[in-house]
This record gives sequence, C-alpha cells and structure tokens, in this order.
Amino acid sequence: MSDANPDILPAGLADLLPPRAEQAAWLTRTAMQVFSAHGYDRVSPPLVEYERSLATRMQGTGRQHLFRMVDPSSMRTLAIRSDITVQVGRVATTLMASAPRPLRLSYAGQVLRIASDQLAPERERLQIGAELIGHDNVPAAQEVVRIAIEALVQTGATGITVDLTLPDLVDTLATSAFPLPPAMIGAVRRELDMKDAGGLTALGADAYLPLLYAMGPFDEAIDALAAIDAGGALASRIRALREIAAAIPVDVKVTLDPTERHGFEYQSWFGFSVYADGCPGALARGGTYAIPDGKGGQEVATGFSLYPDALLDLGAADSGQGAGKLFLPLDHDHQVAARLRAIGWRTVAALTPDDDPAALGCTHQLVGQDSVPL
Amino acid sequence: MSDANPDILPAGLADLLPPRAEQAAWLTRTAMQVFSAHGYDRVSPPLVEYERSLATRMQGTGRQHLFRMVDPSSMRTLAIRSDITVQVGRVATTLMASAPRPLRLSYAGQVLRIASDQLAPERERLQIGAELIGHDNVPAAQEVVRIAIEALVQTGATGITVDLTLPDLVDTLATSAFPLPPAMIGAVRRELDMKDAGGLTALGADAYLPLLYAMGPFDEAIDALAAIDAGGALASRIRALREIAAAIPVDVKVTLDPTERHGFEYQSWFGFSVYADGCPGALARGGTYAIPDGKGGQEVATGFSLYPDALLDLGAADSGQGAGKLFLPLDHDHQVAARLRAIGWRTVAALTPDDDPAALGCTHQLVGQDSVPL
Repeated sequence: MSDANPDILPAGLADLLPPRAEQAAWLTRTAMQVFSAHGYDRVSPPLVEYERSLATRMQGTGRQHLFRMVDPSSMRTLAIRSDITVQVGRVATTLMASAPRPLRLSYAGQVLRIASDQLAPERERLQIGAELIGHDNVPAAQEVVRIAIEALVQTGATGITVDLTLPDLVDTLATSAFPLPPAMIGAVRRELDMKDAGGLTALGADAYLPLLYAMGPFDEAIDALAAIDAGGALASRIRALREIAAAIPVDVKVTLDPTERHGFEYQSWFGFSVYADGCPGALARGGTYAIPDGKGGQEVATGFSLYPDALLDLGAADSGQGAGKLFLPLDHDHQVAARLRAIGWRTVAALTPDDDPAALGCTHQLVGQDSVPL
Repeated sequence: MSDANPDILPAGLADLLPPRAEQAAWLTRTAMQVFSAHGYDRVSPPLVEYERSLATRMQGTGRQHLFRMVDPSSMRTLAIRSDITVQVGRVATTLMASAPRPLRLSYAGQVLRIASDQLAPERERLQIGAELIGHDNVPAAQEVVRIAIEALVQTGATGITVDLTLPDLVDTLATSAFPLPPAMIGAVRRELDMKDAGGLTALGADAYLPLLYAMGPFDEAIDALAAIDAGGALASRIRALREIAAAIPVDVKVTLDPTERHGFEYQSWFGFSVYADGCPGALARGGTYAIPDGKGGQEVATGFSLYPDALLDLGAADSGQGAGKLFLPLDHDHQVAARLRAIGWRTVAALTPDDDPAALGCTHQLVGQDSVPL
C-alpha cells in the first residue's frame, strides 16, 4: 500500500466540489434558520472529546464505530464524534444545567464513524439537529416532528413521509398485558424486527403476532393497534400517537410501524423517521429520550437529527448563489465593482490581459459602469 | 485519571454556547459571502485523510502536530487536518486539475492540532480561506489582500493593520548580492527572526544588518529596503510591494517586516498578516506559494486563511439574529405563528400551561394575531 497514490482519499471520505459544497452550506444554513425561528439556539461542541465521555453518553450504541486516538498531552483516549446529539446532551446537563427549561438547542456539523456498509458507504456525514430538553410530552413531540418536516421542505425535499414508532413497545407489553420472561424480550424484539410471524409463534409469543399487522398508513394501523390494545396498556400511547399524527401537515404522508427499533436504540416512548422522494434512507430521525445528568439522575428530552447529504445527490438543493458572473477587466473601477457586488453580482477580476471571461464562467463583463452580456 | 469527571473536555477543546456558536456561524457565512461575491467557489474537503497525503503536502511544516489514528479498514494511518489550504491544493491539482485557471476556491471548517501553547491554548479552531490557483503575480496578491481585509471588516474587525513580508528574502539575497554558503542560510535567518544585530555580525553577515532597519510603517520601510537594494536583486520585489500597498484601502495601516518568516513556512516571494484592534494574534495570514501537482511539477497560487475565533472573544461579531422572541401560548394559531416567523420573529411555543415566557427569554407574546410586549 505504501506506493499507493497519496492523493487518493480513504474509502468513505470525499471532497465536496462546487457547486455541491455551496449547496451543503445553503442546506445547513436553511435548516438552522428554521430551528432558530422556532427559538432553538445554536451550540457547537468540539469535533473531538474523551472517548469515555462520548461512549458513556452513547449508552453503548455505536461505540465500536468511533475513530479513536491517544492524546499525547493527557495520555487519554480521544474519539472523533459520531453523533452530536450526545454532545448536546452533555452541554445541556453540565454547562447549561442552570439554563431555564425547556431548553431548545440546535447544532450542525460533521460526524465520523469507522464502519461503512454497502447501503451507506460514507464514513463522514453532515448532521443537523434540534433538541428540546426538559420535556418529552405530546406537545414536544408535535413540535419537533413539525420542525423536522419544515426544515426538510425548506431544503428541497418533496414527497415526504413520516413513519411513527414506539421504541419501547415490547418492554412495555412484556411487563404488562403480554408478559415475557426478561430473557425472552430480546428474542421477541428480533422476530418483530424481522417481521417474522413464524418466529414469534416458535417462541410461544403469539400474543405479539397482531403487532405485525398494526403497520402501514397511519389511520388503519393505529386502529389495528387500538384493537389489540392489551387491556389498556397502550391506551395513552395510542392517544398520543393520534395527537402527534393530527399535528402533521395534511400534505405529508404518515405511516405507523410500532415495532420499528432500528435507529431508535436510545429513544423512549416515541420515535419517528422522515423519508422523501428519491432519497434511499431516512433523512431525519428523532424522538423522546433521557439524558444522563452525570449525577445518577436523568433529564427527559425530545429531538431529532437530519442527515441531509442525500438531498445533495438529488440535486434538490439550491446553492443560494445567483447565476450571473461579471468579468472585471484589469483596469476596472473598484468602487463600481463593489457597488455591483453589493446588489448581488458575483465578480471575477482579470489578473492578466489574457484572462478569458467565458472560460472563467462569466456571463457578463463590466464596460465602464455597466454590466454587458458576453 | 480514570476517576476524572467524564464530562470534562480535553485541554484546548471547548463547547461554543449561545450566542457565541451563532456568532461563529454568522462570521463564517459573512466571510464566505465576501469570497463568493469575488467569484470564489466553495469546496469542502473531509475532516480526515491519509496522514501521508496531508503531511507530504504540508511540506514538513507542522506534521508533528497532526492527530493521527489507524484506519481499521485500510490499516493505514489517518490524520485529522490541521490546515485546509493543503487540502484545497490537493483538490485543485487532482479533481479540479482540468478546471480553467485562474481557479478561485474558498473553504471554511474546523482544524485540529495536537500541540497547544500558552499563547494559543486552543487545539481546535475555525479556518476560513480563499485560494487563487494559477497566478502568483501582483494583481493576484492585490486581490487576496483586499478580499482578506474586506472579509475582516464585514465580520466586525476594526483598526486593521496589514503587515507585508518577503518570505524567501534571505534565499534570494544569499544567491545574489549578499552571497552566503548554503550551510549558513539557516543561521542568518534565525538571527533575522530574532532581530539580533550582534548575532548577524558574529556570523560575519553584516551585509544583512540593514534589513533589520527596513521595517515598520510601509512608506519609510520600503524606502529603507530600496536603499539597500543590493545591486537590483530586490528591485522587482520592491516595485511589487509598492503596488500591493497602493491597492490597500487608505484607512488600513500598512507595515513592512521583510524578514518575517514565522507562519510563512511554505510561502514564496510574498506574504502578509492582518491584525486588528483587540485581537492578540494575526487574524489572517497568506501570500504566494506553489502547490505540488503530484506529478513532480507544481502550480503557483496566492491565497490566505482567516483564523477569526479572536473576533468572538472581542464580542464584535453579530449573531445575525433579531433581539425579539415571541411566546406562543399552548392554543396558538399555527398559521399566524408561521407568518410572524416569515417576517423575522423567533417564536417559543408553550409545551405546558405553566411555561413562563419571561424565564424563556421572550420579549413578546402572541395574543390573538398580535405580538404584545411582555
């Protein structure tokens, strides 16, 4: 490998070139403006932290995917963040522990992970999110679902579907209506994840079979879930899901998959994913969860993250830059050029007498005080 | 150390809280808009690359400060970037090798380094820059100096001073008017760096003494340099410096320190630093340089980087967010709220009947369709 071209990037890492890099910046700015308009204040945690801090707050999920290194100054292990949400949880419960609740925080930045798979080969991606700390009630869930949708619409997503789920559903049922020995809970979850009716029967967990049919378009699926209901153990959650679904804009498709757990490892009673036309995976994922406060207690929260890189592949993102580029000859008037930039022109100044305006992508050139089409 | 609070960050790494995080984003956006208006297109290289690629392109400078780790998938050493300029050089000479020249590229992102010192304890900082690839002539230098100043003015810097330098001055003189054996060049440079007249005399390099006095306010210093001139070896550079200085806005102070090399390890004939009131170090640094093209040749370039974190400490940065926050009661009209956000209001929605608008930082509340001061 030592003779390999040193200019090749490692697998799963890439340069964003023009205009994609500008589109990514526009997309970030646009989503963050939506969050700001809803009262979320930006925080920026560092790219690198002590591995132990990140891993502890990740509650075991994904720890094996952290890029790790030794810090020569502290001789402790550092890691590059693979998730900004846990950093925001740390900030909320330490530096901002005394800020009034609910605390609304937003963030945007790159995250890295070691592992890449065929479905998602990239190892660096953009994560943009909003976290509402101090509540995990229905109004909090309604707010974050609506804001996630608004941010995706503003950044060019179309044909949006929101999929609702109940991440701790099996845990809830196992200790109430459909009792399971603790050792069997994991096995039942796995069969539900694989939507395997035969597997559930083989486990003697037939009571869980109807959950496999309480999925699909929201109105039918929630009725199916209500029919199961299990002696009222699910009543409050069904009511909550109906209220959340009712708060979603009518032009957005809503589905229910109450046993979906993939990607909801640390969520509590509520989780959601957002999909859009032309994007292979979820563009957003979120829900309710609890943040360890570092003193043995915890604080509830509701939030979500966008992973909007797929919107760039779609070409839906705007660059926010106008189309016209104005060539400035070598002897141009700098004040005239500054005035034209102030009203939105992008200028390209000549550096030699031979610079070719057309080759440089210019649409116009400055003649005296006027922009003249090439 | 294993009992240390896991929520403490490593030395030199920090969270940006509100409103600083938003100010940093505003500052980035503002500088990048200035670059875009001058025709620079954004690129975004990855946070991590093969260590060998980064280190080779850094031409030895600062390689020891790279955070390194082993990539489990390639089993090769990766490093976190400590400088985006070298990544942009790689992009320009590989992926964008066939793009028309001059190629104007801009970038913004975080960089990390292992070492921290007392003057600059931070190990992560924001780097924002613009690189003009294909020219290192006077118009290119004039353009980048002017754009660096414009970006700093737009981001709130005041009392700006630009310090010009000739990074390869000693190399030039040593092979022309003031010959030095190659083995002595390093020693003469060090004495000049320390402004040590006695040291130069001790080295028998008295010919270099007058350079120590060709520094200070530009007009006097450039005349002193011209008086030395050394049989015309410096004539073209003196003329170039005069032309660059003449292109700097009149309200900006210009100084000359022709032997200054610190921070200009890879620059060629021209370098500059920008300082501002209240900021301890240089806010920007740049100049002319050569990019290895990976095929044994090289391509000239002119550019600069801003390191604007000091502007945050100064409090000069705007957050770009309006001051007013509007409280929305539990039963508010969502369409009215959306209309108010569209005209610039930031809203904070109630999640319980007990939410306290004043404690949440609100200045107004929504009553019917109207925003009413609290």
